[in-house]
Amino acid sequence: MNDFIWPIRVYYEDTDAGGIVHHANYVKFLERTRLEWLRQHGIELTQLKQQYHLIFVIRQLTINYLKPAFLDDIVHITVNLSKLGKASMTITQQVSRNKEILCTATVKIALVNSIDKRPQAIPPELLKILTQ
Amino acid sequence: MNDFIWPIRVYYEDTDAGGIVHHANYVKFLERTRLEWLRQHGIELTQLKQQYHLIFVIRQLTINYLKPAFLDDIVHITVNLSKLGKASMTITQQVSRNKEILCTATVKIALVNSIDKRPQAIPPELLKILTQ
Amino acid sequence: MNDFIWPIRVYYEDTDAGGIVHHANYVKFLERTRLEWLRQHGIELTQLKQQYHLIFVIRQLTINYLKPAFLDDIVHITVNLSKLGKASMTITQQVSRNKEILCTATVKIALVNSIDKRPQAIPPELLKILTQ
Amino acid sequence: MNDFIWPIRVYYEDTDAGGIVHHANYVKFLERTRLEWLRQHGIELTQLKQQYHLIFVIRQLTINYLKPAFLDDIVHITVNLSKLGKASMTITQQVSRNKEILCTATVKIALVNSIDKRPQAIPPELLKILTQ
Repeated sequence: MNDFIWPIRVYYEDTDAGGIVHHANYVKFLERTRLEWLRQHGIELTQLKQQYHLIFVIRQLTINYLKPAFLDDIVHITVNLSKLGKASMTITQQVSRNKEILCTATVKIALVNSIDKRPQAIPPELLKILTQ
Repeated sequence: MNDFIWPIRVYYEDTDAGGIVHHANYVKFLERTRLEWLRQHGIELTQLKQQYHLIFVIRQLTINYLKPAFLDDIVHITVNLSKLGKASMTITQQVSRNKEILCTATVKIALVNSIDKRPQAIPPELLKILTQ
Repeated sequence: MNDFIWPIRVYYEDTDAGGIVHHANYVKFLERTRLEWLRQHGIELTQLKQQYHLIFVIRQLTINYLKPAFLDDIVHITVNLSKLGKASMTITQQVSRNKEILCTATVKIALVNSIDKRPQAIPPELLKILTQ
Repeated sequence: MNDFIWPIRVYYEDTDAGGIVHHANYVKFLERTRLEWLRQHGIELTQLKQQYHLIFVIRQLTINYLKPAFLDDIVHITVNLSKLGKASMTITQQVSRNKEILCTATVKIALVNSIDKRPQAIPPELLKILTQ
């Protein structure tokens, strides 16, 4: 699946007293973009949980902070599914402003059953969507 | 100036363990919408500060919580300039989902000089924009 | 029940590009203090929900912002139960730094059954604790 | 410098609709603990900036999420200075509940001049404190 790009505006709530976007808020930007990427493919987490008892659990997050973003900036965030396991996926993401990369991130996600919390294989329909 | 409407998607970060949008996060939704309302009129807070040393300071906020919003909801938020003083304004806002009102809010804002922190009259250009 | 006071340290996450605590974050400070006030009386919300299916729902919040708080400040927040109805309560709170009041707030809370979402009377044990 | 431990209570604001602490909020918990660790040694970031024009910039953050934390939990967070360079440091941290490790993290921080944004060596007084 090709790169997905999502624009996010920087508001006051995202910044800190250093005058830049607080480093924890990129974690939110990254998740918003992953949710919109799924939604673009017709997938919503609430529906995955209801239909398959499937939840996505963040296992590892690595963020490299290269340059800061500021109030009123529009940043663009990508999603790239770089690895798809039986009950896991690795997603790489980038935050940029114009052509400038501000942040890169790698997110390892486990697919887990919401009831017994054990690993759960990706349903074939979802697999098809994610690998198309 | 007529009502302005801004859509906001509810993400995981906005919800709490009660399964609904956390009440503090509506405060963020309301501010995002006010900033977009200003932006739509060509006004950005960073530019107001640089050009006029003018900052907007929240003086009072009243929120009525009527019904909850949930993960994956799209809510629509309005901005209505209900009162415009010399160095202050009162804005009323509504958060709704479809036709259902979830929240109403009144926000009193002071216009303050960023250097001496004293009340500052709205610049004529800005006044014109806000009352057109 | 007399005033309860809770200290909160201001961290980077609480501030914004204006160099002050973001106005939405006082809403969090106020709630943290209410939860600690209840906890001091042996009440935890998770236990109220399990034992009585009782949840506290914020109905109205009014905050007056008087002066800003800054990074590294310690602010002190009070809780005063100003009105106790059958299935509701009104709490007044103050945020101060040293002797200086930064914020005052009034919070109207409904007591609701977590299953049918209808108003639920305060259990006698809880009433006793809250009015002692 | 030996391990520092800081307790943090989980509030509603920290949780999400999954009923657990939202993964972005651990980033805040980690930073709060680093700031308290510095403060315990008499160092405050506001003072470092005023006195030395020195700011701490997060360059890389890796978090491993092992188990979730829940509303009303008390978690304990450690800080261990695992590497100290000329103008950088690497800190390892752990979040635990009782004896159970919930999260581990590695944070790479650059020391930067607040004016020209170039790398700045740790002042000798600070170095002494950090390595004592």
